[in-house]
Amino acid sequence: MTLFRLDASIRTHDSASREIADIIEEEWLAARPGDTVASRHIGVETLPATAWAAAVTGGMTPEPDRTAEQREAVALAAALVDELIAADAVLFGVPLYNYGVSQHFKTYIDLVCADPRAAGERFLGGKPVVLATVRGGAYGPGTPREGWDHSTPYLRRIIADHWGADLTVVEREFTLVGVNPALDSFKDQAAQMQAGALESAHRAGRALGALPSPV
Amino acid sequence: MTLFRLDASIRTHDSASREIADIIEEEWLAARPGDTVASRHIGVETLPATAWAAAVTGGMTPEPDRTAEQREAVALAAALVDELIAADAVLFGVPLYNYGVSQHFKTYIDLVCADPRAAGERFLGGKPVVLATVRGGAYGPGTPREGWDHSTPYLRRIIADHWGADLTVVEREFTLVGVNPALDSFKDQAAQMQAGALESAHRAGRALGALPSPV
Repeated sequence: MTLFRLDASIRTHDSASREIADIIEEEWLAARPGDTVASRHIGVETLPATAWAAAVTGGMTPEPDRTAEQREAVALAAALVDELIAADAVLFGVPLYNYGVSQHFKTYIDLVCADPRAAGERFLGGKPVVLATVRGGAYGPGTPREGWDHSTPYLRRIIADHWGADLTVVEREFTLVGVNPALDSFKDQAAQMQAGALESAHRAGRALGALPSPV
Repeated sequence: MTLFRLDASIRTHDSASREIADIIEEEWLAARPGDTVASRHIGVETLPATAWAAAVTGGMTPEPDRTAEQREAVALAAALVDELIAADAVLFGVPLYNYGVSQHFKTYIDLVCADPRAAGERFLGGKPVVLATVRGGAYGPGTPREGWDHSTPYLRRIIADHWGADLTVVEREFTLVGVNPALDSFKDQAAQMQAGALESAHRAGRALGALPSPV
């Protein structure tokens, strides 16, 4: 079976979203030693900023008339959708950046949506997807930044409501505690949040690992 | 005086957001013939997908130790902030794409936020900004897609709440009526929405044109 993992963090070290995703991947491999994990690191090996427009216009152009750029973009969108369709389970690691969606993950969403197979709704119908998402501050009820997380509701909307996946969200807040000295007074709360998130990651990873093999 | 105009549409022709922005720019120039309009077309001349990460890591690196890529990215972020600070008024044309924020405009926001002058909040304190935004479908109360516009609330959050600008939003829905035959029954409603949006655009443009000149 195949787990497809995508990381949108721009960091390769000390990435809080990768820490969670690593646990989930480890649980998958512990349950299914030797299984395949396909991966993309779009925060580091970025998708081209011009690809989506080329995929959209390419999709509206008869194949023989497409430019080389359109052909390449249409093929890229198809490859991204192939990965999602081929996977038995999907793991997205996507941090909140500047109160919004990762620019790199939005580029990914746009490209996926440009492929005709994803243009119809719920093309991931029922597929298990885990979203590991992290936020530097705190955005819960009663905090000064309540309502400022404009990423997670959008990611739920696309992955679950639009693509139809069976979505589990593992989230951690206050990842900047210990990094930004202004947040030092929240150390206990942050440690508790981290422990809770890592435990949720183990649980989500074990659930993926327990998926029945396709007949 | 200077108007800074930025377009995030991936289209150069038949762009609904450009139609609104064109009217606002024309009203500005009608009130101030010979004035300057600086512009960027980030949906077509895209910002590099790797620039933001390089600007962030570059900002944390002492200047002499920065790589060439970091230097270039830090300079790009500074140039984007220079444009906003130098402008007397700002015009953003940003369509809704795949129920979310334009990937290119999020890249722009990230880069602006990477500059130290924008890291403090409300750096556009009170500056008049008009956001021209358009949506292919309808997202109002009672529609099947109510709540699916995840772009406009985020753009308000960043431009008004975070950057502190004095924001006016001119918006138009149902721009795909006449393009997508499935929406043909909404032709009257769409025409009414378009007329209303264009009238709002004239009003917003005249308000910008009436801004007092700096002493």
